[in-house]
Amino acid sequence: MKFAAARLNGRTFIGLIQEEEKIFDLQRAEKKFFEMETIPANLEDCIKEGEKFISQAQVLEQRLQKSDDHQELVYSLADVDLLPPIPRPSKNIFCVGKNYRDHAIEMGSEADIPKFVMLFSKAPTSVIGHGDLIDPHTHLTEELDYEGELAVIIGKKGKQIPVEEAMDYVFGYSIMNDITARNLQANHKQFLLGKSLDTSCPFGPYAVHKSAIPDPQNLQLETRVNGELRQSGHTADMIFSISSIISTISQGTTLEPGDLIATGTPSGVGKGFNPPRYLKSGDVVEISISGIGTLSNGVN
Amino acid sequence: MKFAAARLNGRTFIGLIQEEEKIFDLQRAEKKFFEMETIPANLEDCIKEGEKFISQAQVLEQRLQKSDDHQELVYSLADVDLLPPIPRPSKNIFCVGKNYRDHAIEMGSEADIPKFVMLFSKAPTSVIGHGDLIDPHTHLTEELDYEGELAVIIGKKGKQIPVEEAMDYVFGYSIMNDITARNLQANHKQFLLGKSLDTSCPFGPYAVHKSAIPDPQNLQLETRVNGELRQSGHTADMIFSISSIISTISQGTTLEPGDLIATGTPSGVGKGFNPPRYLKSGDVVEISISGIGTLSNGVN
Repeated sequence: MKFAAARLNGRTFIGLIQEEEKIFDLQRAEKKFFEMETIPANLEDCIKEGEKFISQAQVLEQRLQKSDDHQELVYSLADVDLLPPIPRPSKNIFCVGKNYRDHAIEMGSEADIPKFVMLFSKAPTSVIGHGDLIDPHTHLTEELDYEGELAVIIGKKGKQIPVEEAMDYVFGYSIMNDITARNLQANHKQFLLGKSLDTSCPFGPYAVHKSAIPDPQNLQLETRVNGELRQSGHTADMIFSISSIISTISQGTTLEPGDLIATGTPSGVGKGFNPPRYLKSGDVVEISISGIGTLSNGVN
Repeated sequence: MKFAAARLNGRTFIGLIQEEEKIFDLQRAEKKFFEMETIPANLEDCIKEGEKFISQAQVLEQRLQKSDDHQELVYSLADVDLLPPIPRPSKNIFCVGKNYRDHAIEMGSEADIPKFVMLFSKAPTSVIGHGDLIDPHTHLTEELDYEGELAVIIGKKGKQIPVEEAMDYVFGYSIMNDITARNLQANHKQFLLGKSLDTSCPFGPYAVHKSAIPDPQNLQLETRVNGELRQSGHTADMIFSISSIISTISQGTTLEPGDLIATGTPSGVGKGFNPPRYLKSGDVVEISISGIGTLSNGVN
């Protein structure tokens, strides 16, 4: 199941993606099929409902598939505005730095390969959706860079989660572009400011439930700028696996449903080229992850 | 005006501190005096109301002072549970690193004095209130340290705020203890994890409105551990002033009402001693800032 948050005629709803080009309106379906309105209109609240929400979505989808006369509940994706799956996270996004060996080296040298998982954050005000424009913030930086990443969406609350149980705490997966102002990242030493500019966290287009991703450590990740392949990585090459990251964070910090973890970027970022190839106005960045989809954003 | 969030008989309310030992229940007062219930029960929502909320609080306090027969609206602080002024911030706390020259040097050398404001964050799950116990997380660290800091509470939304207008965006001030696991801070390079353990952000006891603090860069800050003076600093010694920090963050990142900024700690942290003097079970940390009060927390 691929969930999306969308807006149509001023109403926000949670939908299920059908055949890549259509979206099935879960709120309207629940009302029509069961005369009930229990499904929250934002995905973070849906995730908090746990298995109940997944069961509801499954039942509604089965009901839809049983007959052809409910097509008023299914819209063309072209007719709706897709929002980020979670438009306003309840805390900063957890981000892993230098989690692919080749990327760590392109950012400096072998000495940059981390021995412990490197964790920083992006402010929730930086989140934008698929298709939204990235503000180049030209008054602040001439070194705006892209970083294609697999995003993990936490499904339930946990602390001191053992590595072997960590995947039980995952709701699903999405795509993030960890847009970074390299000059701010370098000058301010800690990464928060250079990673938290408004619009610097494109996120989406979908939240894919984990049941649809048999092995999240076996996904191809590609980033294109204006159609040119820049990053071609594989989640098998993460230095710290998803379960290891979840376990490490949760040893002292409670994880909560709806928490987002950006798991790091492979090599091929703009800073890795000589000379660097930073983003400029008019560029289009597309990040594709197998089994999830493509997140596309232009630079304003 | 000193605001506090408190709980009495299971009900959470916003109160005004009276003569240091009493708290005036704003919600009950509004109901009794005006038969209205418009004041939100959490301070973040109150702050979003802007000047309207400050005016309401002033009117209610004046009404209280006019007569002696409303004492059922005023409780002894001993009878209520004080909560953090904002128990669950809507994003991570912005924190400034090495913002006092002597502290930067005690953490390393003169080379550690930052040229640009160093910004990292603490997860909102780390927040606890005055009197709450700090979990020593002995399975993770033997190097738990205190950092007494002036906290700034943002009062209104803003972006690209000029330095000379920055103080207009402040709601008020409080105290934070930026508890840090030094081993995690060092091992993980970026500070997020070592700063975000559950209970590692004692915050309070009050949110003092800026009208009561004529000059926030002229405050004495003292931290005591078990009564022994460890930190004795002055906010005049910040490398980056409050207005400079607000302006710098907001150049690319929208600030919002209720955002919290911990402005850095002066010298005298546990790591600054030789040998280091880290926190241990049973210790009590008290941070006092002139005009604000004292934040006290024991280590469990």
